[in-house]
Order: sequence, then structure tokens, then C-alpha cells
Amino acid sequence: MTYCVGILLDDGIVLASDSRTNAGVDQIACYTKTHTFTWLGQRHMALLSSGNLATTQSVISQLQREAQLNDSHGPSLASLGSMEEAAHHVGRVSLAIQEQYASKAHAEARFDATFILAGQIAGQSPQLFLIYPEGNPITPSPYSPFLQIGETKYGKPILDRIITPALSLENAARCALVSMDSAMRSNLSVGPPLDLMIYRRGQIDGGIHTRFELNTPYLVALRKSWNNGLKRLFQRLPEFNWEHFPHVQSPPPGE
Amino acid sequence: MTYCVGILLDDGIVLASDSRTNAGVDQIACYTKTHTFTWLGQRHMALLSSGNLATTQSVISQLQREAQLNDSHGPSLASLGSMEEAAHHVGRVSLAIQEQYASKAHAEARFDATFILAGQIAGQSPQLFLIYPEGNPITPSPYSPFLQIGETKYGKPILDRIITPALSLENAARCALVSMDSAMRSNLSVGPPLDLMIYRRGQIDGGIHTRFELNTPYLVALRKSWNNGLKRLFQRLPEFNWEHFPHVQSPPPGE
Repeated sequence: MTYCVGILLDDGIVLASDSRTNAGVDQIACYTKTHTFTWLGQRHMALLSSGNLATTQSVISQLQREAQLNDSHGPSLASLGSMEEAAHHVGRVSLAIQEQYASKAHAEARFDATFILAGQIAGQSPQLFLIYPEGNPITPSPYSPFLQIGETKYGKPILDRIITPALSLENAARCALVSMDSAMRSNLSVGPPLDLMIYRRGQIDGGIHTRFELNTPYLVALRKSWNNGLKRLFQRLPEFNWEHFPHVQSPPPGE
Repeated sequence: MTYCVGILLDDGIVLASDSRTNAGVDQIACYTKTHTFTWLGQRHMALLSSGNLATTQSVISQLQREAQLNDSHGPSLASLGSMEEAAHHVGRVSLAIQEQYASKAHAEARFDATFILAGQIAGQSPQLFLIYPEGNPITPSPYSPFLQIGETKYGKPILDRIITPALSLENAARCALVSMDSAMRSNLSVGPPLDLMIYRRGQIDGGIHTRFELNTPYLVALRKSWNNGLKRLFQRLPEFNWEHFPHVQSPPPGE
């Protein structure tokens, strides 16, 4: 499993991914799930992947080969006219690769892969897509402007409580890291290092790409601050009414 | 789906459950998942249920019938010598009921149910069990002294971060409610009202059983306090190093 999240804000895009790949518990490896494509001043995109590793590697590798050829060789992330067309293209490439391995001899085998594609083309708005294994893409809604793939449930509550389109890129990035941290703590199939990408709206420069190991000072400080903050927060939650009576020495109910 | 959690503390036991039962999205109903058995001063137990509604109703109903008969009619929650024996008994009853409905005509149908059993018998320690659909029970470990059934993932991170055996019953109860709230916000298959049970160690009186509707003032205050607290906490998280440079008017990095 893995866990990746993409957030579409008024100010741009935040993406975060873990690096754990596993098949059962005794085949664990570390692969980045964030792959970037940058044409300075023209367009930049990041593709986050989850699912069958052979499929995701083949998809990334084909998209990279296409992007290095020129337009006459067919569609590529370098030439497609919009982020939406790029999302459909990733879907078609993914589905073609899955079908290539489908065989009667292994009819039960699944080669599913799911992607998050985000980026901006000069003169257009930043956009964010989730691309299903079947190849069809969706965009997020302004009411819930994020998309997740992989082991998504552990990290969803904090996103549901905090993320709005007006949030700053940095606050959304901190929220994405807390969401990743929650998934890492609660599930062995999500693991470090964490990749964080920030694309500021209108600034087509490849974005800020930071990688955090578990012992990277910023991540250590963030995890500590969050955990201590939650514990303090618990001390300030409202008391049950029966807590006021048995102990006359206890303080009156909070605000 | 549903969501229930049980927490085993030095001071006793905390249990929480939601009330949503659904089969698809157009068959939604409200059933309590917390069922209590009390013999004042002698023993008290609560059984939390998740899974096939016909199975869980039949199990509860059989356990209630047995408990009303006297010992000569066979084992019952009223007479079994330990909480562990009670857990194995619940498992046997559950499996027998599932097998009763298994048929060749509907070989694909599942009648699975999962239970949390908690309580105390006078002179013994409070105990907590999760009983799998196959009928076999487990207890929690002191490193992670809680057990969950149903839609468990959304509410797990906050338990992982906060729960230790030394926590007070009231703080653990607030944590259980926050965990339920996280699952409710993020998943439609978990819904109010919430049942909260608190068994204080050595006090065999049926415990404190409280039910919270979404508009019960305490639950409203807890949800508000938690959400506002999280938002404040976000404002105090450490800044990224690049946040110090672009805006000279911004405050210096926090503690």
C-alpha cells in the first residue's frame, strides 16, 4: 500500500506522498511516488502513484519517453493542450499497460494503478485530478478540495476538519504532513521518507520539492509540536457533568 | 457499517459505539450497538456489535434469554466463571447462528458479526475482548490498550496518539468521542446517536451509560472545542525555513 494526497487551493497546489511499497509484510521497499515533469515558464506537473509497482513504473517511464520526443511522435505531457487532456492521457497509458499484462493464464491477477496528476500550464489555472485504474479522471470539489489515493482513511479526518480552498499553501502543506504522519503511525504499509511538493499559482518553476526522512529536523519538530499540542488540547476539552460533583477540589467547568 | 471502540485502562473500561446500520446507501437505520448485562454487585458486561444485523440481533437475544434462565439450563453470561469464558461463549453463540443460515442456495452470502465484550466479575479484573466472526477472542495489549470493530481506520490515529493505560476514564471517554466524531465526519456509514459506557474498576453497578445525539449540548461543546483547538494548533506549528525569508514583515519562527 501507499498513501498520497493532493490539495487544490486558491494559491496553488500541495502534494504529499510516502515511499513505502510492499507485497505482503516480508517484501518491503522504498520507492518515491512523486514524479515531476517541468518545462520552465511553460508547464509543470507532478504525478503521484499508488498500486501495482510494475504498472506505475511502466506508466512513468512511457510518459517520460514521450515527453523527450517531439510533437510529431504523438501526444505527450509536453504538448497536450490542457491539464484535463493530460489526465485522460495518463489514464489511457495506464489502462493500455494493464491490458498488456492481462492473460488467460493469470486471469485472477490485478495490475491496477491509481494516480494523482497536478500541475499548471502557462495561461491556465492550476488543476488536480485523480485517475482511476479504469483510466477515467475526476477533479475535487470546492467543498472538499483534496484527493487521496492508497491507504486513505487514517489521514482523512484531519483533512476534513482543516482544508478549505482559502488555506495558505504552507498551512495546507503542514496539514498534509500531519495527515501522512497519522497514516504512518497507524499503518505499517505507509512509511518514510515523505515527499512534499508545493506549486504556487502562476509561478511555473517546478515548485518546491522537499523530502523528509523521519529524522529530518523539520519533521521531528512538526510531529512533536502536533503530538504535544493534541495532548494539551485534551486537557482543555469540556468536562462531563458528573466530573463537577465527586471532587469538590476540582476546578469549575471550562469556558 | 458501524464503528465501536473499547478501551481498557488502569481505572476501568470505556466503550463507545455509533448507531448507524446500513445495507447500501438507501437502507439506513438507527440501532444501538451497545447491549448491557448487569447483576448489581456481582458482575456487569457490555457487548458491542458490528456486522450482519440479523446475526447480531439473534446473538444478543439468545444471550439475554440464557441469562434469564437459571444455571441448570447451561452456560450463560450470568454464570460463566470468568470474562474469558464469557468471550468464548459469545463466540460460540455467534458462530452457531451464522452456521444456521449458511446454505447451498446462498453459498456466497456472509452472515459475519464481530463483537467487543467488556466488563467485570466481582473479585476479578475488568477485561476487554474482541470476538472475531470465526468465534475466537483476543484481548488488547498494554502498548495499545484499545480494540475497534467496524469502520475503524478514521478514528484510529487519535487513539494511537493519546491512549495509554494510565489515562483517566474521563479523558479516555473524551478521546473515544473524538475518535467517533472523526469517523462520523469522514464516513457516511457511521452516524449518531453515540453510546458511551464507563465502567469504573471495582464498582459493579452497571456503569455510566450516556447517549449523545448530535445536538446534545455536551457533544456540541466537545466537537466545537476540538475543532477550534485543532485550528489554533495549526497556527502554532513550526514554519518551513523558506517562510522566514520572502516576507520580512512576518513574525520570527515560533518556539
